[in-house]
Amino acid sequence: MSDQRILADYLIETAFDPRVAAEAMAGEQSSGTFVAVPGETPELRARSGARVEMLEELEAVAAPSLPGARRPRDDRSGAIRTARVTLSWPLDNLGPSLPNLVATIAGNLFELSQFSGLRLLDMRLPDAFADAYEGPRFGVSGTRALAGVDDGPLIGTIVKPSVGLDAQATADLVKTLAEAGIDFIKDDELQADGPHCPFDERVRAVMRVINDHAERTGKKVMFAFNLTGDLDQMRRRHDLVAEAGGTCVMASLNSVGLVGMIELARHSRLPIHAHRNGWGTLSRHPRLGWSYVAWQKIWRLAGADHMHVNGLANKFCETDDSVIASARACLTPLFAHRPCIVMPVFSSGQSAKQAPATYAALESTDLIYAAGGGIMAHPGGPAAGVESLRDAWEAATSGVPLADQAAARPALAAALKAYAT
Amino acid sequence: MSDQRILADYLIETAFDPRVAAEAMAGEQSSGTFVAVPGETPELRARSGARVEMLEELEAVAAPSLPGARRPRDDRSGAIRTARVTLSWPLDNLGPSLPNLVATIAGNLFELSQFSGLRLLDMRLPDAFADAYEGPRFGVSGTRALAGVDDGPLIGTIVKPSVGLDAQATADLVKTLAEAGIDFIKDDELQADGPHCPFDERVRAVMRVINDHAERTGKKVMFAFNLTGDLDQMRRRHDLVAEAGGTCVMASLNSVGLVGMIELARHSRLPIHAHRNGWGTLSRHPRLGWSYVAWQKIWRLAGADHMHVNGLANKFCETDDSVIASARACLTPLFAHRPCIVMPVFSSGQSAKQAPATYAALESTDLIYAAGGGIMAHPGGPAAGVESLRDAWEAATSGVPLADQAAARPALAAALKAYAT
Repeated sequence: MSDQRILADYLIETAFDPRVAAEAMAGEQSSGTFVAVPGETPELRARSGARVEMLEELEAVAAPSLPGARRPRDDRSGAIRTARVTLSWPLDNLGPSLPNLVATIAGNLFELSQFSGLRLLDMRLPDAFADAYEGPRFGVSGTRALAGVDDGPLIGTIVKPSVGLDAQATADLVKTLAEAGIDFIKDDELQADGPHCPFDERVRAVMRVINDHAERTGKKVMFAFNLTGDLDQMRRRHDLVAEAGGTCVMASLNSVGLVGMIELARHSRLPIHAHRNGWGTLSRHPRLGWSYVAWQKIWRLAGADHMHVNGLANKFCETDDSVIASARACLTPLFAHRPCIVMPVFSSGQSAKQAPATYAALESTDLIYAAGGGIMAHPGGPAAGVESLRDAWEAATSGVPLADQAAARPALAAALKAYAT
Repeated sequence: MSDQRILADYLIETAFDPRVAAEAMAGEQSSGTFVAVPGETPELRARSGARVEMLEELEAVAAPSLPGARRPRDDRSGAIRTARVTLSWPLDNLGPSLPNLVATIAGNLFELSQFSGLRLLDMRLPDAFADAYEGPRFGVSGTRALAGVDDGPLIGTIVKPSVGLDAQATADLVKTLAEAGIDFIKDDELQADGPHCPFDERVRAVMRVINDHAERTGKKVMFAFNLTGDLDQMRRRHDLVAEAGGTCVMASLNSVGLVGMIELARHSRLPIHAHRNGWGTLSRHPRLGWSYVAWQKIWRLAGADHMHVNGLANKFCETDDSVIASARACLTPLFAHRPCIVMPVFSSGQSAKQAPATYAALESTDLIYAAGGGIMAHPGGPAAGVESLRDAWEAATSGVPLADQAAARPALAAALKAYAT
């Protein structure tokens, strides 16, 4: 038995008194139900009930954000109120189980008819969770050691076209990128194990190039092979990558799911590059679903080593503030005795340009900075593309404006011109 | 190699020409990227590109449904257009893999900045998927055989309070319900394996009651034990339930995830009752995420036997039309040679009242009809509650109005009065 509690913060929007609505949430997600039932004694409620720990009312809104919500019967005001609320649950309701945690803090809440908006913002977990799960086995230091990059961000890229290259064409591209001085390459999340580019053949062809390059130069490029699949497939593919001398595997979190990810992490001897594709379904509406700050905690504990966070001035819909909050979260300790720090992965429309603002906001270079066009479409070629990114990060960490740095660095100068818009 | 294609239907909302936006979607999710890359040859695009198969423009809307979308630079109209669009992908891009299917048809789409709304409506899969996955091993006929219910819906309920009862108190409640003549009982999704009600103890106590009752009466109540947890836990718990003579296990789909569910189904010798808690995050906004019609196909193929669909006049936010579309989808064949039919589970505020409309819309009694208060809060007690539900379904299937049926059925008459509002 434990007296520890799980805490979760939500943004709620409701036509009801927010405190009454929050109490309903707490009841629904613990010992309460729609109608009073005989078994719900005061003792049971004291032992197993969720509690409203904090409620801070925020600005009212003019119209409901989500359809289907009820209004109080006697309501004439039309007001829709919002609040930030913290609920807590006894750890003993579920024990330190990540899947059951998800059902408890992010289960049947989002459809409750009291709410025209409900979003999970953050959570804080008892230490028992840290003891029950792998966490990242490599994180920042393990990734740096395997990639041979002691300082600065890992400069990375994604194989493009995303899908359609065969194994040999992929390996040829990897050869170009390795010779360009890149630290990290990843499969696109669309590249799986189709007959045009079977996983095994791709691993063998790519690792031949990477191992040759490492023998010649001493630098082993880290390649994240997308092993997303059924569990036996993922384990077998992981083993193949490890045997071929590979140093990273990649999995799509929303495709694999939590139990699959936990199993993969327990099996893995390599860093796991965690791709968040599908994340928009959980987060694109600002009053529904999960914030990344809450969501990434689940996956770090499950065993992710690298987590995608989008990038500044990206090509998707996300704001820069949201991107930075996500990246900071990845670098913030999860537990005092087990920080579970993971490397944030910046990607989507990244070039030399975004380095200073990224560094200024993050105050760290513990990250993977992945550029596609920012490398392959550099007017001086891929090597100049990689060089321009290193130049930009050197400027950023030294506090030198990019334009000044570019005066003596032609690759950077060309990048600033090429990626001006 | 195969020339089969995967098809997916979407609702899109965009300030761009919908055809141009749909082409961008197709490019992003296959061989295209934000900038032209050298490797994207016409041959590669022909082999691996996704295609826009159909586009039907629908009504324009006044304001964007989701924030963050871009507008065309030269746009002065302010118009926001919507369309229903079908994309197709070569099966060979990924092979018949459910996790990679999710990354392909529901991956990095929802954040594309062309769209102020994007929802996956439906999908059609090549037969190769049917051969690659378990599908439901029990479905309707297997569930009926194990529950001993040849005709009509399985009348069911949920243990309440959801969490907090100990194993013995749960078993005592099951005794009451078994004696009341119930067919089916499930754990709440919040009831896992905490120290107040450990899974093993709960199974032993509950199955003692169920087995005793079966020996005395010949009727074995089906109890769905919530085994949601890590993979080794789920397998071990499944085995315990099977050894104790249990006939059903339950898992929370959004907590376990796809790979975990596939593994559970491969291991399971019992029907899997699939709980959809957390579903609101994926579906509550009508222009974001997944429709249930698309989503349930994934889980049926993965191996679910029972799928939750909410209920008519429910206590959540969902409309009746949406509930019926979900339930019909569960009863519609997935493949001609492998229908993968699953039992829809109706719950949330259900009582005798909703039986006629449910039957009229579904034209089937292949379902689980779960009532909490509709049984436990019946003025005549749980046995009268169960009886009132059977009376109501008998009336519904015979085309007799509930009020007429109630004239000779006191349990139904009392229910109609008690659940009038």
